[in-house]
Formats: sequence, C-alpha cells, structure tokens
Amino acid sequence: MTYKAITLVKRPETELTDDLLKVIDFSKPTPTDGEMLIKLSHLSLDPAMRGWMSADEKSYIPPVKLGDVMRASGIGEVVESKNENFPIGTRVMGLMGLTEYALSDGKGLNKIPKELPADAILSVIALPGITAYHGVFEVLKPEKGQTLIVTAAAGSVGSLVGQMAKNLGLTVIGVAGSEEKCQWLTEELGFDYALNYKDSNFEEQLSNAAPNGIDLFFENTGGVAQGPIFNAMNPHGRIAVCGLIAEYNKTEASPGPSWIGIIKKRLTIQGFTMPDHFHRINEYGQALGEMLEKGELKYRTHVLEGLESAPKGLNLLFNGENKGKLIIAL
Amino acid sequence: MTYKAITLVKRPETELTDDLLKVIDFSKPTPTDGEMLIKLSHLSLDPAMRGWMSADEKSYIPPVKLGDVMRASGIGEVVESKNENFPIGTRVMGLMGLTEYALSDGKGLNKIPKELPADAILSVIALPGITAYHGVFEVLKPEKGQTLIVTAAAGSVGSLVGQMAKNLGLTVIGVAGSEEKCQWLTEELGFDYALNYKDSNFEEQLSNAAPNGIDLFFENTGGVAQGPIFNAMNPHGRIAVCGLIAEYNKTEASPGPSWIGIIKKRLTIQGFTMPDHFHRINEYGQALGEMLEKGELKYRTHVLEGLESAPKGLNLLFNGENKGKLIIAL
Repeated sequence: MTYKAITLVKRPETELTDDLLKVIDFSKPTPTDGEMLIKLSHLSLDPAMRGWMSADEKSYIPPVKLGDVMRASGIGEVVESKNENFPIGTRVMGLMGLTEYALSDGKGLNKIPKELPADAILSVIALPGITAYHGVFEVLKPEKGQTLIVTAAAGSVGSLVGQMAKNLGLTVIGVAGSEEKCQWLTEELGFDYALNYKDSNFEEQLSNAAPNGIDLFFENTGGVAQGPIFNAMNPHGRIAVCGLIAEYNKTEASPGPSWIGIIKKRLTIQGFTMPDHFHRINEYGQALGEMLEKGELKYRTHVLEGLESAPKGLNLLFNGENKGKLIIAL
Repeated sequence: MTYKAITLVKRPETELTDDLLKVIDFSKPTPTDGEMLIKLSHLSLDPAMRGWMSADEKSYIPPVKLGDVMRASGIGEVVESKNENFPIGTRVMGLMGLTEYALSDGKGLNKIPKELPADAILSVIALPGITAYHGVFEVLKPEKGQTLIVTAAAGSVGSLVGQMAKNLGLTVIGVAGSEEKCQWLTEELGFDYALNYKDSNFEEQLSNAAPNGIDLFFENTGGVAQGPIFNAMNPHGRIAVCGLIAEYNKTEASPGPSWIGIIKKRLTIQGFTMPDHFHRINEYGQALGEMLEKGELKYRTHVLEGLESAPKGLNLLFNGENKGKLIIAL
C-alpha cells in the first residue's frame, strides 16, 4: 500500500538539474477525523514552481522545505473520507503537490464539477485562468480601443490574457518564441499580431504592429523583449508584471529599464502573484467558466504521462519547448 | 522701454553649459483686449526645467522651443491691464518664464493674496508643494505606522514630503548628500533618520534605520541610493517616481533594478508629473495653505539676486549645492 510522490531534495542554482527532485515511495496514510485521502488524476506544471523551489524567504509564498513533497496544483477525487464536507467521490482542485495521493483537511481545496474535463480546468479555471483574469481586470483595467501586448503569449496565462483583451475590443499583440506559436496566436486565437522575439528585426516588427504605441503590457518573460516594449509604452500606460521566466534560471537577473521612462510617460507598473488573491478564486472561477461556456477562450494542452515525467516537464517551461498548458496525467 | 528675459538657444547634451541660455533685451509690449502686463518679482528654479530644455517630444510637456523664453514659474503683479478679471495690482503666480515682464491673457495663472511672503508661496504653495502633496496623498497613500523614505530629502519637494509623512504618524527616513543637510532634516524638520548617500556604509545605515523594511519610497534622485532602497522595500510597497535628478545630466541613463523584486514583493511603481494634475492646483493649494498656517511645514530658501543669476542657479540644483528652494529675486 504505497504511492509515489516527488520531493524537493536540493534547491536550484541556475538551471533545473536532474538532482533537485526525487521520486519517493510513501506508505498510504489513513485519514483521521476531519481528513480525507485524495487520489490525484492530473497535475499541473507551472512556471511559479521554479520560485517555490528557491530559498528566498522574502518571496510571496514560503519556499518548499527540503525533503517535502514539491508544491503543485492538481485535480483529484476523494477516495477515503472522515470529513463530511468532502464525501467519497468529491472532485477537488488545489495545491496538493507532485504526488499520486494526498491527505487533506479540505483547507484551500475547491470542489469542481465532475463533467468539466481536466484539461479545461487546469488550463482555464485553475492558476493560469485566475492569473490572467486578475492581471487583466484588476491590474491592467483595459478599455476598448487600447493596444495590449503580452509576452509568453502562447503560454497558458498569456494565451488567455490576449483572448480576454480581444473579447473586450482591444488590439492585441502577442510575443512568443517560435513561428509555430505565432501562427497559433493569430490563426487560432484571433490575436491581431504575433511577434517572434528571436527575430533580428523584432523592434521594427513591434513598431509596425503598434504604430501608435502600447497602452497595456502584460509581462510574463523579461529578457530581450522587455526593453523595446517598455520604450514603446504610451503616456499613462500600465504594466502588469506577472512573470519573468527568462530571468529565473540566471545567476544574476538582468536590470530593468531606466526609471526615466516611468516619469516621462507617467507609467504605473504593478507586480502581482496569485496567493494574495486566492480569496477571490470562486468569483474568478465563475467568470472564467462563463467565458469557457460561451466559447470565448480556447486553449491547448501538452500532456505528459506519469508522475516521473514531472522533472523533465518543468524544464520544458523554461526552454520554451512546451506547446500549451503542461499537464501530467496520472 | 525694454526689459530682460532669458531665452533657450541650445539644448543640453549632458551638462547644463553656459551657452544654452541667453539674456535678451525685449521691448515692453502693450496689452490688447483681454491681456495684461505682469511685472515679475520672484522666479522659481526647479529641477523640471532641465527636462523642458531637452528635445524629447515624448515627454509629459512640450519642450521649450529654441529661441523662446525659458519656461519657469514665478510671482508677479499686474501693472497694465485690459482684462477685467486681473485689474492692476493683482498678484499672480504661474509659468511666466525667466523674464522681468510677461504678457498674459490670464490662462494658467492663479491669483495669490498679497500678504503671503513670496518665499512661502514658491517653497510651499507652488510647484514643490503641490508635487509633494500629490505624490504623498494620491500616489503613496500613506498609513500611520508605515515607514517612508524620500530621496533629495533636503530639496524643495523632499523636505515637504517628509514633513507631511511625519505629520501623518509615519517613520520618515530622508536621504541627502551632505552632513549639513542631514542635520537640518533631523534637527529642524523632525525626520526620524537622515542618511548621506555618499557614505560608504550607506546600505548598512539604511538597514539600521529601517530594520523592518520600507513601505513607501518617494524617489527624487535615482543614482546610487536607488538600488539599496529598492531592495529594502516591503511586500506591497509603493514607489512614487517624481524625479531622477542624478540621471538627467548623463549621456545614458542608468538601468533600473530587475523587475524580479516587483513580482516577489508585489510592488506598485508609479511615475507622475504635475502638468497632468494642474486642474487640482486650487484644491492642493488650499490644503497646503492650511498646513502652513498650522505651522506644520517648515522650509528654507536659497535666494539669488537678478535675472542673470538664473543659468548658474540652475546648475546648483544638479550638483546638489543649493540649500533650500532656489528663488531669484528681481
């Protein structure tokens, strides 16, 4: 009666090497009063996990302790229960970790309907969707007619950001790292422009796509695209800093742009992370569910099989090789 | 019947050299219907003038055209009038330029009571005061018990920012460039701490003054203090970017801090310039007048004599040698 889980055994220096995570066999626990045992069916791999592996105590959420099961969100079903709010058969979503089974008292878990496919939940209703929703509606506050740019636009968050902005009547520019991704953005998702930041004439493409400048910037990557986009911002522009995936694996993070542009253009730059806003998950989830139902949000998933695929899967996020939301099917 | 005015004849490259501004004799004009002639009594020298001399079309206010009288705020009295709203003897304040006389239709000018001393007006009610007021109350939104840091703390804006924050019950740290200024801040203005950014152990002094971190940062300078202060920001901290006086004379502005801190600490960084908020001048002026009356705001002025002292006076702002609000008495 054992199950597998992945524990964090070493913190990353720069790259996510093979020796940081370790698959361990655990004995299956028995729930005590108020607890339940959940069998995970799907796990989500998200860029935020890179930060949770690091030791920075000042970060927005405590790092995973060495030796603990690695934090991750997932979907599962209650298979044993001593908690009357979560009877056997209840389907739940939450930060249960890279594991096949999890013991929980229900705190921080959300019940989800059985009929919603797991890929829709993890791609839209879970972390990517609520992150996109919060960044768009609470930080950028878009207005019809504005121009919005989003980096890692083909990623799980970025692709939703762009679609939400399109649905609100904005001109949307996506920045991604391959022709295939760019094509998906314009042809399938309806982005107005998709630019490959690896192109040598990226800045020229940017000024062609945004001849009147950028009003709203949803930043997921950092890296080479940041400077040119920052320089193209319009007066009173707003920037939501959600992720800097190009920076996390560096020994020393690149500096940001000079603050002179912040004054001259009276910009507002705001960083956000979702744990501050988890109390709004139900509200956001409902809005996202309605968008899904109306067919307003498309997504694609990149599914890996089995718990052991998690460590290599995480690296796909940082080398940009994933195509769509990374999900592990157990 | 001539008067002197200073015109902009060349734009600055880096330093403010002697050949940029030129004193010219003009014939005294006669007001036509709706106009009036104002005799200036006091001019204000402000850091913002550096930006107005540059050619950057994207800046928040159009640059002064080459050959035009240099923009500056000042105080004067109406000496001839064909505008019934501004009879002879009316005292006015506004952006009338580096000049002994100005012709105006009254647009953008504010009437001011005769009994208020010119140094109180230009130090508190004019640009420095409304800038400090807007930055503190509309951008930083301080709460009692928080820790606020302000750079160029002995400057005309910074000294008011710190005093407003003290009056609201915050712990206030000022950053300045000399021991004399630091002493003035703590002994005369009641700042809790004043740090000299030129001290080799500035970072150590900063962490001693703010053992629990910084909640609010009013940025006037850029330069070497910016990085350490940014690193000391607390989660959910707010930064008002008002000026970067250490950067304006550089050929290339220094980069800002990495945006990783913006995410980890969910910071909000907001740039502002006052021309966006000139419609609130009366409201702010009234609040500032009340603070002055209650004795809540101290100030000191550095007075130069005669129009010709303006070019050298401007340089004092950028080498940090002025002691108090720079005013030219005509």
